[in-house]
Amino acid sequence: MRFVKGHGTENDFVILHDPDGALDLTREAVARLCDRRAGIGADGVLRVVRTKAAGVDGDIDTAGAEWFMDYRNADGSIAEMCGNGIRVFGRYLVASGLAAPGEWDVATRGGPKRVTLGPSGDVSVDMGPPALLGPGEASLAGEVFQGRRVSMGNPHLACRVDGPVAALDLSRAPGFDPVVFPDGVNVEFFRAVGERHLEMRVFERGSGETRSCGTGTVAAVAAAAAETGSEALPEGVWTVDVPGGRVTVTLDDGTSHLKGPAVLVAEGETCRDWL
Amino acid sequence: MRFVKGHGTENDFVILHDPDGALDLTREAVARLCDRRAGIGADGVLRVVRTKAAGVDGDIDTAGAEWFMDYRNADGSIAEMCGNGIRVFGRYLVASGLAAPGEWDVATRGGPKRVTLGPSGDVSVDMGPPALLGPGEASLAGEVFQGRRVSMGNPHLACRVDGPVAALDLSRAPGFDPVVFPDGVNVEFFRAVGERHLEMRVFERGSGETRSCGTGTVAAVAAAAAETGSEALPEGVWTVDVPGGRVTVTLDDGTSHLKGPAVLVAEGETCRDWL
Repeated sequence: MRFVKGHGTENDFVILHDPDGALDLTREAVARLCDRRAGIGADGVLRVVRTKAAGVDGDIDTAGAEWFMDYRNADGSIAEMCGNGIRVFGRYLVASGLAAPGEWDVATRGGPKRVTLGPSGDVSVDMGPPALLGPGEASLAGEVFQGRRVSMGNPHLACRVDGPVAALDLSRAPGFDPVVFPDGVNVEFFRAVGERHLEMRVFERGSGETRSCGTGTVAAVAAAAAETGSEALPEGVWTVDVPGGRVTVTLDDGTSHLKGPAVLVAEGETCRDWL
Repeated sequence: MRFVKGHGTENDFVILHDPDGALDLTREAVARLCDRRAGIGADGVLRVVRTKAAGVDGDIDTAGAEWFMDYRNADGSIAEMCGNGIRVFGRYLVASGLAAPGEWDVATRGGPKRVTLGPSGDVSVDMGPPALLGPGEASLAGEVFQGRRVSMGNPHLACRVDGPVAALDLSRAPGFDPVVFPDGVNVEFFRAVGERHLEMRVFERGSGETRSCGTGTVAAVAAAAAETGSEALPEGVWTVDVPGGRVTVTLDDGTSHLKGPAVLVAEGETCRDWL
C-alpha cells in the first residue's frame, strides 16, 4: 500500500492514493496504519478517491467535486470532516499533479468544502459559519472557566483564560455539564495576546489534548469576536497560535476561512506482509 | 533521504541506509525525523553504515564486523547500544540482501554484538552478562519497592511487585536514591506469572514509560533468577511479556540472549525540501 505522510500544524495524517476506489480499507487496517509504535503513526487517514468511484453519490452533496476526502480517525472510525486534514489533502492533490493550484471544492461527508492554494505554501479552506449557541462553562483542576458554546458541525466550548495557556494542566479532561453536551464537547482555552491574536490549547473529545484542531481555532475566534457584543460576528482576520504552529482564521460574509501550513513529510510503501 | 520504519516489540526506529557514510546526520535532522507529529516518528534512528566507512576505527572494538549500527536517540543524542534496535537492524540487513541469514557480529559503540536470525521471524542478540550489583529500592505513588541493581552497560533497578503490573501508575517517574544512581536509572517492575515467565513494565530514564526495553528485560530476568540465591545465575530460558509484545531472555554460559520479533513496517523517502 503506497502512502504519503503529512501534517497541518502537527495534526498528522497517512494519505492513501486510491483514485479508483479499489482499496478495501477496513477499520483494523486504519488502526494499524495509525499506530504510532507498531505502524506508521498518525491522527487519521485521508483516503484520496475520485468522487465518482467513492460510492457516495446520492448519500452526500458532492457539488460535482472531482475528489472525495474519505477521512478516518486513528481508531478506524469514520468522521465527516477535518479542517487540518482537508488542507493537507489539498496540498497532496496539487503536489501529485492531480489538481492545479487555485480554488476548487473537495467532497467530504460534511458536504463540499472549498479549498484555496498556490503551488506551494499555506492552504485555506472555507469552514462555513460558526454558530454561537450561548454561554457554557468548563472546569479544570477545580477552577471554573466561563465560555461560549459554538457549533462548527461538531460541538465546541471556547473559554477565555486570564493567564498563559501554557500554564494549564490538560493532562486530564476538563469537566462540563453532560446535560448541555450529551455527545461530549471539544474544549478550547484561549487568551488574547494582541489585537485579533489568540493563543489557544484544545482538549478534543475522544483524543485528549492535541497539537491543533481546525474547527477549534475557528470556534475560539468566534467566541473572542462575539465579545464585542454586536449581533453579527464582526469581520476580520485573526491569528491563532496553537502548540503545533500558527493559523489564521478569517470571519467574513457569513462564513469562516482557516488558513495555515500543510506539509508533506515523506512518501513510501508498506512492507510486504506487514498489513 | 530514503528510510525504512520498523519496530521490535513496539520500540520503533527510522532506519537510514548509508553504506558509504555519506550522510551528514545532524542532531537536528534526527530530532526532526523522530518527531511523531511533524516528522516520521520513532524512538530512535538506526544509521546503517559499513564499518570501514563509519570513521570509528581505533575508537571502538569492531571485531571485523562488516556493518556498524550508528544509534541515535529521538532527541538526536548518541547512544552506545539498543537491544531492540539491533534486532531490527539485523532484520533490515537480511531483508535488504546486505547480509545472509545466520550468525554474525554488528559493530556498535558498545562493542561488537552477535546477532542470530533466519530468513524471517525472530531475531536474537547476545546482550552480554548482566552484572548484579546488590539491593536497591524505588518508590511509586508513596509505595516503596525492593529491587536489585543490575548493570547491562546501562543502569537498571529491577523490582518485583506482588500485583499485576498493569495496575501500576507509571505516568510519573519512580523515586530512587540519587546517591546510589547519580546518572539516573531505568526502573523495571516485574511479576512472575508462571515458571520462568515474567510480566514487566519499565520507566526509562529520559523517556518515561516505554512499550519495551531490551536491556530492561534482561535485567528483570537476572533479578528474578538471582532470587534462587545461588552464587552464579542459573541458566535457563525466560519469557518476558512487555506492553509491546513478548521476548525471550536466555541466561547461559556467562552471557544473555534477547530474542523477539523485529518487524519492518514501511519504506520510503522524505519529501523534497522537507528535511
